Amino acid sequence: MCRFAMYLGPPIRLSQLVTEPSNSLIHQSYDAKERAEPLNGDGFGVAWYVPELREAPAVFKSISPAWNDANLLNLAPVTRSHCLLAHVRAASPGLAVSQGNCHPFVRGRFAFMHNGSVGGFGELRRRLRQGLSDAAYDAIAGSTDSEHVLAVVSDRWEAHAALADRPLERGQKALREAIATLEALRVEEKVEAPSYLNLAFTDGERALVSRFVSPGTEPAHSLYVARGALVVESGAGRVVPCPAEESAVFIASEPLGDREGWEAVPQNHVVAVDADRSVQTVAL
Amino acid sequence: MCRFAMYLGPPIRLSQLVTEPSNSLIHQSYDAKERAEPLNGDGFGVAWYVPELREAPAVFKSISPAWNDANLLNLAPVTRSHCLLAHVRAASPGLAVSQGNCHPFVRGRFAFMHNGSVGGFGELRRRLRQGLSDAAYDAIAGSTDSEHVLAVVSDRWEAHAALADRPLERGQKALREAIATLEALRVEEKVEAPSYLNLAFTDGERALVSRFVSPGTEPAHSLYVARGALVVESGAGRVVPCPAEESAVFIASEPLGDREGWEAVPQNHVVAVDADRSVQTVAL
Amino acid sequence: MCRFAMYLGPPIRLSQLVTEPSNSLIHQSYDAKERAEPLNGDGFGVAWYVPELREAPAVFKSISPAWNDANLLNLAPVTRSHCLLAHVRAASPGLAVSQGNCHPFVRGRFAFMHNGSVGGFGELRRRLRQGLSDAAYDAIAGSTDSEHVLAVVSDRWEAHAALADRPLERGQKALREAIATLEALRVEEKVEAPSYLNLAFTDGERALVSRFVSPGTEPAHSLYVARGALVVESGAGRVVPCPAEESAVFIASEPLGDREGWEAVPQNHVVAVDADRSVQTVAL
Amino acid sequence: MCRFAMYLGPPIRLSQLVTEPSNSLIHQSYDAKERAEPLNGDGFGVAWYVPELREAPAVFKSISPAWNDANLLNLAPVTRSHCLLAHVRAASPGLAVSQGNCHPFVRGRFAFMHNGSVGGFGELRRRLRQGLSDAAYDAIAGSTDSEHVLAVVSDRWEAHAALADRPLERGQKALREAIATLEALRVEEKVEAPSYLNLAFTDGERALVSRFVSPGTEPAHSLYVARGALVVESGAGRVVPCPAEESAVFIASEPLGDREGWEAVPQNHVVAVDADRSVQTVAL
Repeated sequence: MCRFAMYLGPPIRLSQLVTEPSNSLIHQSYDAKERAEPLNGDGFGVAWYVPELREAPAVFKSISPAWNDANLLNLAPVTRSHCLLAHVRAASPGLAVSQGNCHPFVRGRFAFMHNGSVGGFGELRRRLRQGLSDAAYDAIAGSTDSEHVLAVVSDRWEAHAALADRPLERGQKALREAIATLEALRVEEKVEAPSYLNLAFTDGERALVSRFVSPGTEPAHSLYVARGALVVESGAGRVVPCPAEESAVFIASEPLGDREGWEAVPQNHVVAVDADRSVQTVAL
Repeated sequence: MCRFAMYLGPPIRLSQLVTEPSNSLIHQSYDAKERAEPLNGDGFGVAWYVPELREAPAVFKSISPAWNDANLLNLAPVTRSHCLLAHVRAASPGLAVSQGNCHPFVRGRFAFMHNGSVGGFGELRRRLRQGLSDAAYDAIAGSTDSEHVLAVVSDRWEAHAALADRPLERGQKALREAIATLEALRVEEKVEAPSYLNLAFTDGERALVSRFVSPGTEPAHSLYVARGALVVESGAGRVVPCPAEESAVFIASEPLGDREGWEAVPQNHVVAVDADRSVQTVAL
Repeated sequence: MCRFAMYLGPPIRLSQLVTEPSNSLIHQSYDAKERAEPLNGDGFGVAWYVPELREAPAVFKSISPAWNDANLLNLAPVTRSHCLLAHVRAASPGLAVSQGNCHPFVRGRFAFMHNGSVGGFGELRRRLRQGLSDAAYDAIAGSTDSEHVLAVVSDRWEAHAALADRPLERGQKALREAIATLEALRVEEKVEAPSYLNLAFTDGERALVSRFVSPGTEPAHSLYVARGALVVESGAGRVVPCPAEESAVFIASEPLGDREGWEAVPQNHVVAVDADRSVQTVAL
Repeated sequence: MCRFAMYLGPPIRLSQLVTEPSNSLIHQSYDAKERAEPLNGDGFGVAWYVPELREAPAVFKSISPAWNDANLLNLAPVTRSHCLLAHVRAASPGLAVSQGNCHPFVRGRFAFMHNGSVGGFGELRRRLRQGLSDAAYDAIAGSTDSEHVLAVVSDRWEAHAALADRPLERGQKALREAIATLEALRVEEKVEAPSYLNLAFTDGERALVSRFVSPGTEPAHSLYVARGALVVESGAGRVVPCPAEESAVFIASEPLGDREGWEAVPQNHVVAVDADRSVQTVAL
């Protein structure tokens, strides 16, 4: 469930992800194209980095559908950043629609969002929590599977403190091991339902976004990446090539407008964006 | 825009309109079948009569989408009445999503709801208000065209106090004259956009529901009526014939389940339900 | 934190607890008299039993302050029951204001609410959860200490299935053992902050309400009980004696109006109301 | 009713008005000192100018009480501007708590807020509206007296287009004439209830803030002005003298911390802040 979008590049307005392009994230909140169910109306959230004021990202969340939230429409054109995240939610059955359950989730200088679900989460939850460090356990404030996935990622991140000067490598290890941990648990508990783990994880300078589905299931939830500059003309959005220093990275559940310039991320791969905005797509 | 449903008959639970049948009003909030746009997620409202406690109907409204409102899901199975109304809203562009703008609207012992729009409402609003009595003017608390339509209906109702002992006839006159007033204004102001006026008006014992569109436009918004008892079996709902004393009247934008037993109301007609639950469909 | 009120007796309207008396629960939401901090504006909830329609109580909750919630004002006069609960919340620092965190909490046919706090909850939470049965663990949907207290009470209730035909005795054991469990944990973990456990627990026919504070701390949060009939005259409310068959039991954090007829519950006692509405106040 | 604060000066964070000082606007939302009723919990709003991105100010409003709104707490420390407005609302009886009724109100590049009430607004409303231009009439989206006051101010502003190059003088005329218009109407309609018109009006560079009450009533709602720099130390806030180029203007219903440095605005005067941040306090 859910749709998300993320941006790293020269500062742009939040509205360029959220309202302006033809398949903006608000458009995906009521008419997503690459899901059987087009509706993602159970709240939304946006996050952005303002490094000159605070290391931790700013975040704004609401349980209103994104399409009718006056505050989002007001904030989007005056919020500008080099690193932006946006998420529209379709709540999994049984998980509450509350502000605290909306993505992105923030932990210190990190922001995280999830599109998908942990197979059999209700059955796995207790064991999953038992395996967490106290810090990761205590940081869980809501009831989503997503926030529990973040807790596992956080613990794996902490486990690799030796890689402090290679954050992208550290993050990849954390993400890979978190997915493996979750899968192992699912198998041990004989859960048949697959996990869908499109996970986006950033420190505001680098980003990792996975596209994962449990083995034997097809396809993973959709995920795309584009490099260049976003041009919005007569309502449609296109990502076009541009000089390297102006070039940005867009990662989104669906192309934000024309598909030209967007590449599908292969299943069970992770997109790694470094601080210089170089992009690598590697197998998980 | 919008979808609504209304019930007059032996007491039933609100859930029988709102959650149980296969095309319940909650289903219509995210997947309406007879509108180009299937989504009615900009709030909802329900009203019901509890005559032993109060003449005025009870009302519960929220700006949450109906499908994810925990309170609605909790109230529906324990709310029981002989007269129920329910409405899911798709806000007209420019009209605020606020609790006060959700239907049904209550005036004394009357409840009212609207599916449609007044053509060129923004241009007509000021003149429309000038023509109102002080009482009807002052009663308008929100910003919808619908509440303005109700104000015109209320004034026309008051104008026919001589018919106090024939309320159904009085209501029909009020509705007919209100529609005529609104149409005359639209024509005078040279508004080309048509009005869609599916209006439901009840005192808890009788009901009038119109299906109207301005001349030259096709079709009016959908409207159906069914008589009998609602049976919900394996998720689908059917209205089936039953003994007269148990027979109820259902009026809804769309059949609540199987189409069997539901009749389309002809365009520019009004369904009139009397206190004995006899039903007449007459031209406007 | 918080204030609550509960009623068992001949059916009355919810408004008789919530809006009508001079110190109604809505009044206590902005001007509580027996707390240092008069404000309980972080959401509210009401629950009531409709046994002819459902065994589980109906519940309506909102994160709006009780004093400005139009739905509460609309529902209160048309909601009538022999067993009513109402709660206004002052969120403990760090605990989210969300609908799911509002009281009363419902588990099957039981309703539960809490006024107070578990000392050092943040530090105790993980161990507290480890001690729960899977059923009680899985039923926790929010993040409050209160819902964790309910989980302990539920487990202790289940442990005394042998007392199935003596529910009031069973409930007293459950409440007493739950408080003892929580206190033992607090002492083991060397938490100095005391627990305040004014707990209300009902099945719609019987009720148990405790007034507890950890040893060495004074005083417990306020709690009162009154027997008779509520009379609201010129804005003030009084509970007056009446014939036994019409006599009701009111239990509330503060008298709902005049103090006459209300008795303070002694500290570390529990008020037990049986199905015949006889009342006993016994030491914990 | 209500409390507000406004800032013009070197860019500061919104949190410096809203959360940091000891009598911040959030503090005033639950514990205002200079009103008989300390509670302003019926929603809030903030506005700020980001001239490099848009002429119109950004605005964020919510019906949650300011003290428990997670979004406000998240936005305040990362929102920085040279011109900030913040308002906490205590709804007048009968006026809906809705997002659209929260202040500040934005019209083009102007922001406006009101602390007070129009005496007898319900009786005056219709005549007041009749006197408005179509543009001012159509811009009213909510139901508050405040938005109607803004409509009168807007019309008077438009009437003085000849003063386009002297905006502060133009604004003063507009404000003075608007107050006179409202007072004349009140007198004509024989309304005895006084009007309280503490009005704040800004284009992001200049500001006018009135302190007015109808003749014969005492006192007007409180209003203060301070010049200098805000220093927050150990929880308290003080405005201290500083070099002219760093000096800011604070105008607020109550001093944001220590009273030192704050001057009460005399009754029936207006504070005029020019683009160079020079301040004049003149009689209305």
